[in-house]
Amino acid sequence: MKFNSEVVLQSNHQVSEVNSALADFKVGVDNVIFSVDTQHNRLLVLLRKRKEEPFSNYWSLPGTLVRQGESLQAAAYRTLAEKIQANNLYLEQLYTFGDPGRDPREAPESFGVRYLSVSYFALLRYEEAKIIAKPALNLSWYQVKEVPQLAFDHNQILEYGYRRLRNKLEYSPVAFDVLPEEFTLNEVYQLYCTILGENFSDYSNFRSRLLKLGFLLDTGIKVCRGAGRPASLYRFDAEAFAPLKDKPLVFI
Amino acid sequence: MKFNSEVVLQSNHQVSEVNSALADFKVGVDNVIFSVDTQHNRLLVLLRKRKEEPFSNYWSLPGTLVRQGESLQAAAYRTLAEKIQANNLYLEQLYTFGDPGRDPREAPESFGVRYLSVSYFALLRYEEAKIIAKPALNLSWYQVKEVPQLAFDHNQILEYGYRRLRNKLEYSPVAFDVLPEEFTLNEVYQLYCTILGENFSDYSNFRSRLLKLGFLLDTGIKVCRGAGRPASLYRFDAEAFAPLKDKPLVFI
Repeated sequence: MKFNSEVVLQSNHQVSEVNSALADFKVGVDNVIFSVDTQHNRLLVLLRKRKEEPFSNYWSLPGTLVRQGESLQAAAYRTLAEKIQANNLYLEQLYTFGDPGRDPREAPESFGVRYLSVSYFALLRYEEAKIIAKPALNLSWYQVKEVPQLAFDHNQILEYGYRRLRNKLEYSPVAFDVLPEEFTLNEVYQLYCTILGENFSDYSNFRSRLLKLGFLLDTGIKVCRGAGRPASLYRFDAEAFAPLKDKPLVFI
Repeated sequence: MKFNSEVVLQSNHQVSEVNSALADFKVGVDNVIFSVDTQHNRLLVLLRKRKEEPFSNYWSLPGTLVRQGESLQAAAYRTLAEKIQANNLYLEQLYTFGDPGRDPREAPESFGVRYLSVSYFALLRYEEAKIIAKPALNLSWYQVKEVPQLAFDHNQILEYGYRRLRNKLEYSPVAFDVLPEEFTLNEVYQLYCTILGENFSDYSNFRSRLLKLGFLLDTGIKVCRGAGRPASLYRFDAEAFAPLKDKPLVFI
């Protein structure tokens, strides 16, 4: 089988350090929060500098541990709402990381409490997402390509989130949530380049494919942006997109 | 934002029953194991009849609790390998379910230990997947459309797995892992109909779209299957597919 599978297990998978007693867990949620700064073509991720052990002074994904009576999503939302103000916060679950030893607090040789991380993913408009400016929170937007070594396995979680983001760009109209309400086709292209890399497609192919999908509305307004001829402003037409919503589509 | 998001949280999300102490968890893995019986056009899922509380005598997804020193994937593989013999077992993580109260053992009013479920997904060839015939295991293939009320939130987990399966069929060549090595285009179509429903596409559109993708190899052999003209046998051409692997494609 040739699944896009990240987990391939063989029957000889190492089980030597397992004993049959059940493991005890605390469960954390870690949020991969992307924003796209469309003005400067930068893809950003929200990071927090830790002031506590373990990994004191390392940057990390913002997260928290799940409390008694709290759902996973509520915990993910709580930690996000403490850090970011935005009009609409949509989170979706990304992946769960739970290998033994992923948190140095686990003391694997003593089979102590393990720390599982359920990661969540969001994409925000940079202009609308305001970091809550408490210095103690130590928050910052980082360019994804300049992210340093993070605490725990957070580089791996970020990589997973980045893959999800690219997939969403390829298969869903998520880009139009991040762009301003009216945009030129060149701005859509720049956004795709920022996330997928410069060479994902040439502009004229991208342009004609996008227009053929039939849900971009020409507003009739033309604007001058930089050199070249005036460019048409478009809008995402939610009504035209509605019948396509559950159809498999490719956007690039 | 218009994500394909299953989690939409508002700022007034109910948090009344949360207190700030951290929750303690046991972590289970539950496997959604599909197989397609291509001879009889049946989509099947592996279920186990529980003989223990809670939900004694209910059917459930086969699962287990994670042991000390054991990774999530290893636990998912362990419980699968106890129940099924197959040549290649590929599992991928599906989704994590962790709402308070999802397991009646949790006793939510006393904030007892909670039970998280990390679900895994697999698709097997029916002819190759042999259930290990220990009567105590109480295992059976069930037609997906005839699945009864299951233990815990397992109907919801199954529904999630079924959605993943349909997505995979739309966006990946997973069907060719489940078909015999040589197949007619009508057999591919029947497989898609079995999983996606009769009306996902008409045969001639499906046929021409599939051939245009360029990775089905006509073997030159023709076979008679039922009424009508002899049909060509095809093969999946892994070499022709390789350069397309990371490109976004639609298969229907």
